[in-house]
Amino acid sequence: METLSENRCFGGVQGVYRHRSNITGCDMTFGLFLPPQAARGPVPLLWYLSGLTCTHENAMTKAHAQSHAAAAGMAVVFPDTSPRGEGVADDPAYDLGQGAGFYVNATQDPWAPHFRMWDYIAIELPRVLMANFALDDSRQAITGHSMGGHGALTLAMRNPGRFASVSAFAPIANPTASDWGRKQFTAYLGADQAAWAAHDATLLMRETGFRGPVLIDQGSQDQFLDLLRPEALAEAMTARRQPGTFRMQEGYDHSYFFVASFIGDHIGFHAQALAE
Amino acid sequence: METLSENRCFGGVQGVYRHRSNITGCDMTFGLFLPPQAARGPVPLLWYLSGLTCTHENAMTKAHAQSHAAAAGMAVVFPDTSPRGEGVADDPAYDLGQGAGFYVNATQDPWAPHFRMWDYIAIELPRVLMANFALDDSRQAITGHSMGGHGALTLAMRNPGRFASVSAFAPIANPTASDWGRKQFTAYLGADQAAWAAHDATLLMRETGFRGPVLIDQGSQDQFLDLLRPEALAEAMTARRQPGTFRMQEGYDHSYFFVASFIGDHIGFHAQALAE
Repeated sequence: METLSENRCFGGVQGVYRHRSNITGCDMTFGLFLPPQAARGPVPLLWYLSGLTCTHENAMTKAHAQSHAAAAGMAVVFPDTSPRGEGVADDPAYDLGQGAGFYVNATQDPWAPHFRMWDYIAIELPRVLMANFALDDSRQAITGHSMGGHGALTLAMRNPGRFASVSAFAPIANPTASDWGRKQFTAYLGADQAAWAAHDATLLMRETGFRGPVLIDQGSQDQFLDLLRPEALAEAMTARRQPGTFRMQEGYDHSYFFVASFIGDHIGFHAQALAE
Repeated sequence: METLSENRCFGGVQGVYRHRSNITGCDMTFGLFLPPQAARGPVPLLWYLSGLTCTHENAMTKAHAQSHAAAAGMAVVFPDTSPRGEGVADDPAYDLGQGAGFYVNATQDPWAPHFRMWDYIAIELPRVLMANFALDDSRQAITGHSMGGHGALTLAMRNPGRFASVSAFAPIANPTASDWGRKQFTAYLGADQAAWAAHDATLLMRETGFRGPVLIDQGSQDQFLDLLRPEALAEAMTARRQPGTFRMQEGYDHSYFFVASFIGDHIGFHAQALAE
């Protein structure tokens, strides 16, 4: 693992690291904020999964998470959203290929060799983090924005016991019924829609739900409401009696200004769940 | 004036606007955060001047100012750092020309026609802001980072009564004695160093000081300490008995992670000064 940068930040360290991934078959870069408390022993870890077109860097600089994480004594990891580099397949569209991994293991060409973001986030990156930093494997939570909210919700529901709590900002909530989903699942997973259900937060909520608290924030002026389909997830959460909160935030859009406005609430929510 | 974007943020609005500047002779873009309180009447205004290579956008997304400004009921304006566009002179170096206006009125060719950032910030942009937004002309404060810290300190000292308080993050503190200053002042103002003194915070501090409180934060691991020369300003502040605080922050560097870590302190400092 290589250190690309480390900056002191709110008494802790905002680092950027690169490592060779066996799962994606390329170098992967991630950001990690370690709060001051990490100097004294392992701290809980919040996963922040980012949205379409993002790298590890966007949320790290724009989500304003570090002040709250430092106050809560919580680390935050900012993974990349896809494999990258020469020899890695790509597509000219912003919503397919590099920057748009959708947190699945691709089974179709040309994506299958590298696009294995599900296993990367669920299996490999946790091992890299736990082996190299003062993090408490038993205290993890997960959040994400847009495509990353989709990833956070699906990873949380399909890895029961791993995450104490899950939250999302404007998640892609029902991708099997949206152009943000159907296009990518067809490309990555193939035309057989049976393989898609495991990657749809609304369908998973209907099937299994989440063993722990859920917090969803959605802006009422989000320019992508038709693609996100938050109403499907809200219906599924309520029908299931899923413990949790779904908040429609008046006037907010899809930007990081929305995320930054409520990241403090989310970190407080996760800190409470991790303390229980 | 044209609205380029408006995003709801911490209950207020983070806007980006463009207007034709008579002073710089080109279109100028600025960011403005209006807190929720602006919906009920004029609010105080904090100027945030940015550093080399920045546009209006860097601090607006990376400084994490909005949460604190919303809590304090304070607007924050993020001006650009130079004139821009076709027909505006430029230089291949990152520290001269577009993105590097140094907050002076250039008198030398090829810079003189457009590079008039002093008058733009001191005269024209205030008028544009007061005419278009719910801002209280009588309650203003100013801060900045690096080249913007230089701008904040020099504008504050040379416009007595305009700003209730001034602060800076890692300012270019003594440009007449630094390669971040001598090169640019020679280009913009000419070889006669008599014209430079009015744009050197350390020299101004020795001559006049500031009528109000001053707060300076400087990272001890700043990679540009030799160019910033903070020791000259600290000496001048102390020798003058300038009311204020100079903080050497252990381990912090020159990045926005440093700025974000302390912007809450700065906004609190200005809010207190503006309340008195």
